[in-house]
Amino acid sequence: MIPVRVNGEDELIARISRRAGRLAHGLVLGIGDDCAVFRPQGREDLLFTTDLLIEDVHFRRQTHSAADVGWKALARGLSDVAAMGGEPRFFVLSLALASWVDQRWVNGFYRGLLDLARRAGVTLAGGDMAQGEKLVCDVMVCGAAPRGRWLPRSGARPGDGIYVSGLLGGSALGLTRGPAGPPAAWRQHVRPQPRLALGSFLRERLAATAAMDLSDGLSTDLWRLCRASKVSATIEAPPRFPGATLEQALHGGEDYELLFTVPPKTSVPLRWKGVPLTRIGVVRKRARAVVLLGGEPLERLGYDHFRRAGRMKL
Amino acid sequence: MIPVRVNGEDELIARISRRAGRLAHGLVLGIGDDCAVFRPQGREDLLFTTDLLIEDVHFRRQTHSAADVGWKALARGLSDVAAMGGEPRFFVLSLALASWVDQRWVNGFYRGLLDLARRAGVTLAGGDMAQGEKLVCDVMVCGAAPRGRWLPRSGARPGDGIYVSGLLGGSALGLTRGPAGPPAAWRQHVRPQPRLALGSFLRERLAATAAMDLSDGLSTDLWRLCRASKVSATIEAPPRFPGATLEQALHGGEDYELLFTVPPKTSVPLRWKGVPLTRIGVVRKRARAVVLLGGEPLERLGYDHFRRAGRMKL
Repeated sequence: MIPVRVNGEDELIARISRRAGRLAHGLVLGIGDDCAVFRPQGREDLLFTTDLLIEDVHFRRQTHSAADVGWKALARGLSDVAAMGGEPRFFVLSLALASWVDQRWVNGFYRGLLDLARRAGVTLAGGDMAQGEKLVCDVMVCGAAPRGRWLPRSGARPGDGIYVSGLLGGSALGLTRGPAGPPAAWRQHVRPQPRLALGSFLRERLAATAAMDLSDGLSTDLWRLCRASKVSATIEAPPRFPGATLEQALHGGEDYELLFTVPPKTSVPLRWKGVPLTRIGVVRKRARAVVLLGGEPLERLGYDHFRRAGRMKL
Repeated sequence: MIPVRVNGEDELIARISRRAGRLAHGLVLGIGDDCAVFRPQGREDLLFTTDLLIEDVHFRRQTHSAADVGWKALARGLSDVAAMGGEPRFFVLSLALASWVDQRWVNGFYRGLLDLARRAGVTLAGGDMAQGEKLVCDVMVCGAAPRGRWLPRSGARPGDGIYVSGLLGGSALGLTRGPAGPPAAWRQHVRPQPRLALGSFLRERLAATAAMDLSDGLSTDLWRLCRASKVSATIEAPPRFPGATLEQALHGGEDYELLFTVPPKTSVPLRWKGVPLTRIGVVRKRARAVVLLGGEPLERLGYDHFRRAGRMKL
């Protein structure tokens, strides 16, 4: 069976607790009890998302540094909160450590994780730890948004403009070419930047009608947005990451850019704080969701081509 | 690499969504968007806990039925909420499916999971799904308690009485003897009953000073309660599950009974709604946590003897 690590366990918790830093806004009790305790403030809705990151499915220890894994484990949930126009508050972490994991790896993991946590203003509030054969982490992020004002997938209306942030296909290019390929693409793959400030901007200033993050590829994710909104979409080729193919931009996952719709008359800047915002199409009236690219139905190939495993949001 | 399951994925989500039932109290948006949305009510604190359940670490597919795995995946988090005196509200589920998993297993898993969810009055609000080599599930439960009134581990004071609910060692006995052993012990191991009503009773009626659930064995968990409260404890042998040894009752994990302390003058009934409540000792003044059994320091053996892997709450 799997070796047991008893010694130093309580010391490890104490060390993580110290590194996790002070309790964030609203967090009353953090690491160390049966539950973390959060005190809701004012008239806010709370947003919850959870994301798995699994060795040999979502990353490989040969190519992904411990700090990259820690960063990405949290980035995915933050990106979901950004896609709702929310502000992240705290997160909990479940971590199954494989037998190859040593203290140095754990330190690197927490360095990457807590580096992003600091930048995003979220606190590690608790979690669970076990040993397994493969390293598995699961991060649950809690965010907040003004009551009833978060951005759903289901609000797109016929005539709305369809936009994406950033340039697409970079993560797929990075995954394909690996760490020896274009450094910018590898960085896009291992260190995605959750678009938190942009999500708030979409909610507050652009009154976006729908939004989601691009985790599984534009062809799959836009279809999901259409299905949730009971509409269809006609689009053109999206803006591409330098070196990425059209295929990678259309179907590559894990770009963690935002896909959103705005009312027909809304003026969207071409860039916002350095991030390109590109109109790629328009929402069409049609209850059965279809995405047309250049007049032809766009197949949903996100999973097959670029992802190593199926993954779904429940 | 791991085979990809694309087809039927969105149908699976739709099916789970239907089975998850109606949105619970306070839940505004459930399965299907980037985040679930919860609207806090009144002056409540929210409680968060997360628990991993891993194939060949916490269960074996040869002996544990799919429904047992689903039940236990949720029971652990509910037990943490019970230990805080809280009422569970909703949960999110991350599930990595191994290649041996078929539709029948998935159905059984959700049957066990949602059976307990219905009994406890909680709703499945969302989650994440992936494929992995071993089956891994991680459940995050959100509960609620009146503001500042939840039961911490840290409130035990010198002179307080120390109590446990139920009979200890049953789960360890069940694990040791397996499904062919005593049926009651196996059932205790695979279908633990989170003590939710008892947790509320401890908070509302007994004004318990500290509480936690017995997940890692009395010897380890009582020491943790003492450490959090900066006290020590002297105890006698705890009440044993029929057939369990003293070792199993002292060090066996996963009983999911409640360990709690009450002020010296508090009258605790011998049974509450059929559950024995047994005084096992008294809290002593001593900043460095020690648990004495019959005058001798009690070793913390919970992990080594009865658990297949180290596990820790962060």
